[in-house]
Amino acid sequence: MKNIEERILRDGQVIDNDILKVDSFLNHQVDIAFLQEFAQGVRKALPDVRVDKVLTIETSGIAVAYALCEAFGCPSLVFAKKSKSKTVGDDVFKTQIHSFTRGFSCEVTVSNKYLREGENVLIADDFLALGNASLGLLDLCAQAGAHPVAVAVVIEKLFQGGRERIEAKGVPVFSGAGVKAFVDGKPAF
Amino acid sequence: MKNIEERILRDGQVIDNDILKVDSFLNHQVDIAFLQEFAQGVRKALPDVRVDKVLTIETSGIAVAYALCEAFGCPSLVFAKKSKSKTVGDDVFKTQIHSFTRGFSCEVTVSNKYLREGENVLIADDFLALGNASLGLLDLCAQAGAHPVAVAVVIEKLFQGGRERIEAKGVPVFSGAGVKAFVDGKPAF
Repeated sequence: MKNIEERILRDGQVIDNDILKVDSFLNHQVDIAFLQEFAQGVRKALPDVRVDKVLTIETSGIAVAYALCEAFGCPSLVFAKKSKSKTVGDDVFKTQIHSFTRGFSCEVTVSNKYLREGENVLIADDFLALGNASLGLLDLCAQAGAHPVAVAVVIEKLFQGGRERIEAKGVPVFSGAGVKAFVDGKPAF
Repeated sequence: MKNIEERILRDGQVIDNDILKVDSFLNHQVDIAFLQEFAQGVRKALPDVRVDKVLTIETSGIAVAYALCEAFGCPSLVFAKKSKSKTVGDDVFKTQIHSFTRGFSCEVTVSNKYLREGENVLIADDFLALGNASLGLLDLCAQAGAHPVAVAVVIEKLFQGGRERIEAKGVPVFSGAGVKAFVDGKPAF
């Protein structure tokens, strides 16, 4: 989507020619209209798909998932949890996810009550890089017997192979902007 | 709000006569229409207030904050971060918050670029108990010179004193439902 690329060029910041910092509009401060526009773009790409649930992982995916719920008329979002709180029970699906930005692996869980056999699930996140988070969420869907209709991410790093790993599982990927490379501290689309 | 009380009675679960588990509609699976209705209720209570930013803390407050942004026509939400990622710089406001549900304290930060002097800030969260999270966010507002217009939470535990601590700072509190006590494993309103 042209507008997303322009926004990244205007407000994004490349750190160490490696990390794209977009916390002014995506994952610290969140621009609501920007996410609504992204979500409408995904809806346009998948006009006839019924989405029963939008699945993401805390934290940065939650606002993205909310926008997608609204665009798809989907009643609820579910966010997989990274740490065990007192209110999470034992009846959960679990998977291991390695976070590229944070530099460590963690177990993420979803209650087996909130991901059900036969549900159409749209997987959402802010970024797609190696694809570890999305593959973990796909694993949770597989455990539940839910049907992943697509992975939708705002920004994709095309050079890190996440898309190929997800498509190899038969799941389409939609991204608002695909970064081909970082050239002289700027993203190239 | 009557509907919120009814939803809590129907779908909430009280654990150890102490913790109210509402993860089927609020903080694990999130019911979008429920949050929209809550947010409209807050808007009705504050009809003439301009909100420049909705401020919350990751994780469970993000969807609540998103709904409030839409209800108030507020362009952006900001979520304070609990852990330091590679993309957070040093130019931050910091405060310590003790989490009742998780049982430990952590430092939370907001970039000083996303909370500004003179901004009208609505503070949002899923729960208000002792008020530690909200007081931490109020502290961040004070550091920024921002003006907190209100604290809006979906569920308030009236017997834990959070409201009094916030009102003592001159900030009004709005909650969707106020739990007076847990009686025989049920919330009483």
